[in-house]
Amino acid sequence: MIYLTRLEHFNAAHCLNNPEWSEEKNAIVFGKCANKNWHGHNYDLYVTIKGEPELSTGFIFDVKELSDIIRKNVVEKIDHRNLNLDVDFMQGKMCSTENLAIGIWDELKKCLPEKVNLHCVKLYETSRIYVEYFG
Amino acid sequence: MIYLTRLEHFNAAHCLNNPEWSEEKNAIVFGKCANKNWHGHNYDLYVTIKGEPELSTGFIFDVKELSDIIRKNVVEKIDHRNLNLDVDFMQGKMCSTENLAIGIWDELKKCLPEKVNLHCVKLYETSRIYVEYFG
Amino acid sequence: MIYLTRLEHFNAAHCLNNPEWSEEKNAIVFGKCANKNWHGHNYDLYVTIKGEPELSTGFIFDVKELSDIIRKNVVEKIDHRNLNLDVDFMQGKMCSTENLAIGIWDELKKCLPEKVNLHCVKLYETSRIYVEYFG
Amino acid sequence: MIYLTRLEHFNAAHCLNNPEWSEEKNAIVFGKCANKNWHGHNYDLYVTIKGEPELSTGFIFDVKELSDIIRKNVVEKIDHRNLNLDVDFMQGKMCSTENLAIGIWDELKKCLPEKVNLHCVKLYETSRIYVEYFG
Amino acid sequence: MIYLTRLEHFNAAHCLNNPEWSEEKNAIVFGKCANKNWHGHNYDLYVTIKGEPELSTGFIFDVKELSDIIRKNVVEKIDHRNLNLDVDFMQGKMCSTENLAIGIWDELKKCLPEKVNLHCVKLYETSRIYVEYFG
Amino acid sequence: MIYLTRLEHFNAAHCLNNPEWSEEKNAIVFGKCANKNWHGHNYDLYVTIKGEPELSTGFIFDVKELSDIIRKNVVEKIDHRNLNLDVDFMQGKMCSTENLAIGIWDELKKCLPEKVNLHCVKLYETSRIYVEYFG
Repeated sequence: MIYLTRLEHFNAAHCLNNPEWSEEKNAIVFGKCANKNWHGHNYDLYVTIKGEPELSTGFIFDVKELSDIIRKNVVEKIDHRNLNLDVDFMQGKMCSTENLAIGIWDELKKCLPEKVNLHCVKLYETSRIYVEYFG
Repeated sequence: MIYLTRLEHFNAAHCLNNPEWSEEKNAIVFGKCANKNWHGHNYDLYVTIKGEPELSTGFIFDVKELSDIIRKNVVEKIDHRNLNLDVDFMQGKMCSTENLAIGIWDELKKCLPEKVNLHCVKLYETSRIYVEYFG
Repeated sequence: MIYLTRLEHFNAAHCLNNPEWSEEKNAIVFGKCANKNWHGHNYDLYVTIKGEPELSTGFIFDVKELSDIIRKNVVEKIDHRNLNLDVDFMQGKMCSTENLAIGIWDELKKCLPEKVNLHCVKLYETSRIYVEYFG
Repeated sequence: MIYLTRLEHFNAAHCLNNPEWSEEKNAIVFGKCANKNWHGHNYDLYVTIKGEPELSTGFIFDVKELSDIIRKNVVEKIDHRNLNLDVDFMQGKMCSTENLAIGIWDELKKCLPEKVNLHCVKLYETSRIYVEYFG
Repeated sequence: MIYLTRLEHFNAAHCLNNPEWSEEKNAIVFGKCANKNWHGHNYDLYVTIKGEPELSTGFIFDVKELSDIIRKNVVEKIDHRNLNLDVDFMQGKMCSTENLAIGIWDELKKCLPEKVNLHCVKLYETSRIYVEYFG
Repeated sequence: MIYLTRLEHFNAAHCLNNPEWSEEKNAIVFGKCANKNWHGHNYDLYVTIKGEPELSTGFIFDVKELSDIIRKNVVEKIDHRNLNLDVDFMQGKMCSTENLAIGIWDELKKCLPEKVNLHCVKLYETSRIYVEYFG
């Protein structure tokens, strides 16, 4: 078994604001992240799949094809977007890095070929904060 | 003469949209950056000053104090903000990386002690795009 | 289950010198690291916790609070210090990266709220050497 | 149990070309990587071992000695080489990152002292593509 | 005046071998870089232009267009290629990083719009070696 | 004219403490850096030379030879050392990054071959603080 990881990037706006809470409570819990005029990040997205290398190619899966699938099905939906307003799979959820990673995992599961074994979605919000989700 | 550089970070939302242009023209010129729901970045800000080291400290200027000045006078105003809506020194200007670097230079000139010789503001919008301004 | 990681930094002096050994043996085993006048490093400390995101915040734990806990209980004790001389939890132990990571894990276990599930302490001594400890 | 990782570098040429396929099929499957005049990479090689720290040193294994073993037995054979033409342990295999990582693992297993427990070979082909192999 | 920089990547094979010299002399002067079976690198290419921001866009030049020009006119010619064999503008020259940077500068001068003021080509061969050329 | 840069690393201990001042004044001016038990850093040292590429090599100077000169004449003296106690060229000076960069420049000037034109010493104390000296 070998693990193959591909890095993609996207830039997005978001804010952390629970609509069921008062402005005061949102400010206390989320601090600067609650700013209703939004802020944003350069996200780094690492997608890891696992499998056995094929004899004829040496690949577990063509990394260029993996990149194309991630870009078309995930990056296209979230790059240069507002995560709270523009992204269908984040509707009704808090736009935390945790929930975004889970949302990306679910999108990838829908579009990756059956033979591809998704292992991990690792998402950096800044160079000092990241989450990992293994399904 | 020696040059001393300090790196600070901030995260912000912005969009590129000229209000005097039609939506179509904005889309053609600015592409995904014109999204009216905003997008955002983790900005890296390098501030360079120059001078002669003082004999008693070996410093041209205390880098901790430099950091405090940048944070209090610049980062505080733009971190976790919307550059178009929330930042006084960007009002009436296009929120390009170029104009943001010039705006930051002008803010720093106002608040740095007279003896500090500002040399360069270098601003990364992403790891692949940066601008430098020398006044 | 999702994993959340926060990076903190500290700078410290140390040396590797077993007091039960002769100077010759220390020089043979530890090479330049045995220099009794000390050397030092910029350490990068990654702390990973795991859990389920809360519905109301999307967080498994507030990363700002995690950062505050690490800084107050660990970084404060070791930043700009001599690991051999100044750090209570390293007394009587060799100041290797391995032992430092274990020491940091033990400090974190003492101060993290009970609901926080510590998963990993990853510690870079240089950009080419790091250790990981999972308890 | 603690995990210790050492990073080494090497630069090499390679191409992806299955000799049993037509030039057309190779071009379709491997794209630019099939160029028969070769291309190349700066590879980053992370080797992770695991064990218990020794009381007298604080080390699970001397990282300098680990570095020497990797350099002498692996890097020496592949640095500034053509992976397809010059490297004995890649003969008869496709020179994918997957197969190279497995080949490096096998070389390391042969030369590491018995007491050293090899855990992972992580190999970056570019900053956006890496594989991990755990044996 | 403001300076705008864009980073592009390419991977290529090359070797350093002066055809007018004996194999011995090449080995002495160029060491491992003289390997006639080639080696290769992941190159990082920073292209800097300078100018005044336009009022209507805030740009000195559209960085997306700059990227497209670099990719179409330079990266396309050298990515996944053999610098000695495949690249027209390196024929008859030693394939050093110095000469490659000068060659890239000359290619860019030919294809950049007249209004774009090329300032610097900065080329990393590895993370520890780079050259800068200002024309 | 082309500029060639080589990166070297070293790890060292130091403290900032003016012996002519009281402990109180040192603590006020230098903060945590005044700790008399020392702290330390992983320093990154970029040395830039300039010149015209030679026709027969494509080099302005052999970067491997440049590296050897820096290592033998500078890194050897400061790596895994105490900058205040162990380094001849820092005696009687405050061990600031500024003074260390100047000291390294002066050492390099003494040992570089006459035909090599030293342009810049750039020294990172941490990833967020660096100085540049051009003589």
